[in-house]
Amino acid sequence: MKVADMELRDREEDYVNINPLQTAGRTYAETRKAVSSYVDGYSVCDWCSGDLCSIDKPPVKGFLADVAEFLGMDAALLTNGCREAKYAVLHSITKPGDAVVVDGNKHYTTYVAAERAGLRIYEVKSNGPPEYGIDPEGYAEAFAKVKEETGSMPAAAILTHVDGSYGNVVDAERAGEICRESGVPYLLNTAYSSGRMPIDGGRIGADFIACSCHKSWATGGGNIGLLAVTDEWADKVFRRSSAYDVKTLEILGCSTRGSATVALMASYPRVKERVENWSSEVGNARWLMEELGKIGINQLGVKPTEHDVNFVESDVLYKISETHKKKNYYLYSELKKRGVVGIKAGLTKHFKLSTYGKTRAQVEHVARAFKEIVEEFA
Amino acid sequence: MKVADMELRDREEDYVNINPLQTAGRTYAETRKAVSSYVDGYSVCDWCSGDLCSIDKPPVKGFLADVAEFLGMDAALLTNGCREAKYAVLHSITKPGDAVVVDGNKHYTTYVAAERAGLRIYEVKSNGPPEYGIDPEGYAEAFAKVKEETGSMPAAAILTHVDGSYGNVVDAERAGEICRESGVPYLLNTAYSSGRMPIDGGRIGADFIACSCHKSWATGGGNIGLLAVTDEWADKVFRRSSAYDVKTLEILGCSTRGSATVALMASYPRVKERVENWSSEVGNARWLMEELGKIGINQLGVKPTEHDVNFVESDVLYKISETHKKKNYYLYSELKKRGVVGIKAGLTKHFKLSTYGKTRAQVEHVARAFKEIVEEFA
Repeated sequence: MKVADMELRDREEDYVNINPLQTAGRTYAETRKAVSSYVDGYSVCDWCSGDLCSIDKPPVKGFLADVAEFLGMDAALLTNGCREAKYAVLHSITKPGDAVVVDGNKHYTTYVAAERAGLRIYEVKSNGPPEYGIDPEGYAEAFAKVKEETGSMPAAAILTHVDGSYGNVVDAERAGEICRESGVPYLLNTAYSSGRMPIDGGRIGADFIACSCHKSWATGGGNIGLLAVTDEWADKVFRRSSAYDVKTLEILGCSTRGSATVALMASYPRVKERVENWSSEVGNARWLMEELGKIGINQLGVKPTEHDVNFVESDVLYKISETHKKKNYYLYSELKKRGVVGIKAGLTKHFKLSTYGKTRAQVEHVARAFKEIVEEFA
Repeated sequence: MKVADMELRDREEDYVNINPLQTAGRTYAETRKAVSSYVDGYSVCDWCSGDLCSIDKPPVKGFLADVAEFLGMDAALLTNGCREAKYAVLHSITKPGDAVVVDGNKHYTTYVAAERAGLRIYEVKSNGPPEYGIDPEGYAEAFAKVKEETGSMPAAAILTHVDGSYGNVVDAERAGEICRESGVPYLLNTAYSSGRMPIDGGRIGADFIACSCHKSWATGGGNIGLLAVTDEWADKVFRRSSAYDVKTLEILGCSTRGSATVALMASYPRVKERVENWSSEVGNARWLMEELGKIGINQLGVKPTEHDVNFVESDVLYKISETHKKKNYYLYSELKKRGVVGIKAGLTKHFKLSTYGKTRAQVEHVARAFKEIVEEFA
């Protein structure tokens, strides 16, 4: 297997990429410069004195202090990703057999992290189609159920602030109040919120915030996350090894120890700026959802949309697939011809897309592409 | 904090870098091309159908099958690093309170992974200065001690195949025999061996092999590891989520899901070739250790050295620091002036270095640099 056998990737340069996993992870020019410069081995550790998160050159330590403040929390740590941050919290503050409450729109990694930690998983269901909304009051009901069935309150609650399918923005502050009243530690999964929109952990009342930086902090292809906590929990979740007092147990001493760290630091000034433009991101998404609605591509989830990630349902696109010679792959192919990628190949009836970071002209181009396809084939 | 505030890194281009953490992680041109191409978000997942290790485009699945064979094992999985691979094994096959036997030259992450898994740690001591050798027979003694103290055999044994300080190559096959005779699952940490020298897990009798690809598989700055296992253990260690049957629990569904994966795949053909040149790597290291010995910089560890990583002790360099105006930082500074980096700044009496991947001319340059410094200042 040579590089020649492995196609190089060109989607960001040659196409408008509307893949919800990728739009807000796209790197900036300065990020790519930093990644190239730090491409070689364990390079962030050139000046390490034993602890990744205390490195001053490059300024990891100062960056993390700034990030904690940016998120309205007290302390922050680098992790290999958002899922690893969630597992670190659960592994620190629960024991196998404990109960955890999650929401019905959770990412699969919330479930998998809880399962790996040996927890009993209780779920706050969404209100189903077409909204799939999560009512934070459901957490109070779930806590009562856990108490009734197990005799104790759950060891933790996890809320998906914004889910990666419908882009529903849940009232995290209300969930925070319920957790505080019940004394349940509260972990907020911000994989699709922090780095895109402003987050204030203090106002929300989160004990822990997990972030996905390759998804939402413009850090690109090297997987990396952040875990921010309040002072109340820092000693427990960021506890050190009994034998190596600079090594944080839950990240096995050091987590993401290379170019992804410098990529995140290089993108961070832009990320801090861009969250202030959130309303124009939502404006772009609303405009597109309205335009697509006119041709029978209908947004599910809370309406009007409050997020750049949206899930649509379309009978018109599905019907085309029944007669098109490329069958259900026609949509991927026709969009790509028009310079648009990021809808999963094979999907026509239900799919998700994101307009994050696109200019209005690019969003208009996406709308036009769908309109042309409907006009040509329907 | 802007990129302008964050110095770019130039050590691999402008210097002979002898940092043992970095020499065998250095990328090849084709690796850097792949990293640049896949720099944007979650990009290895463009054609994912739910499981990182089954992706065909880029050919992750085929790569992992090849790697398993290359290591003499049955199956392999991508992990975020070697430490994460070790924790995955311990978390899968032990329970808190179990005993694990490790060697005295272990990397700190072996200890930290065992501590995070809640294990009682027993150690096979090295024979101390100057050799710091690990006698595999010590594992039989340690097993007997565990049995006596706890009533059971240990739940696992971990051997550091080659330690990162002295570069001692332990007789892993003999340790494997002892583990098999005692029925103790055997995890081999190959952070400093696989990717540098040939490894045959079948001959060694390893149940699990953990690899560090940013350290020893030319994968550079994105942290990434491999975990290879025998068929006997694959179901247990690679077990799937009960709710998501494509998601492997110990890597929380997917581990290193970005450019580090393509970097590893791009470097792999070169790695497969280079392990065949291991004897010339050892030859370079022996030559350097002999030359340095002539000027009072003396190799510790097993002699003659069997590895590119070596630890030296030097009274002559230490004495210079007592009178030099830069004190103990003179050595770093004088080496850098001569185009050599990678010895930790501030060290003079004891330090480690690696000649991996250097040409003989570069190794001669390193020897000359040390000689000049001793001649000028001693």
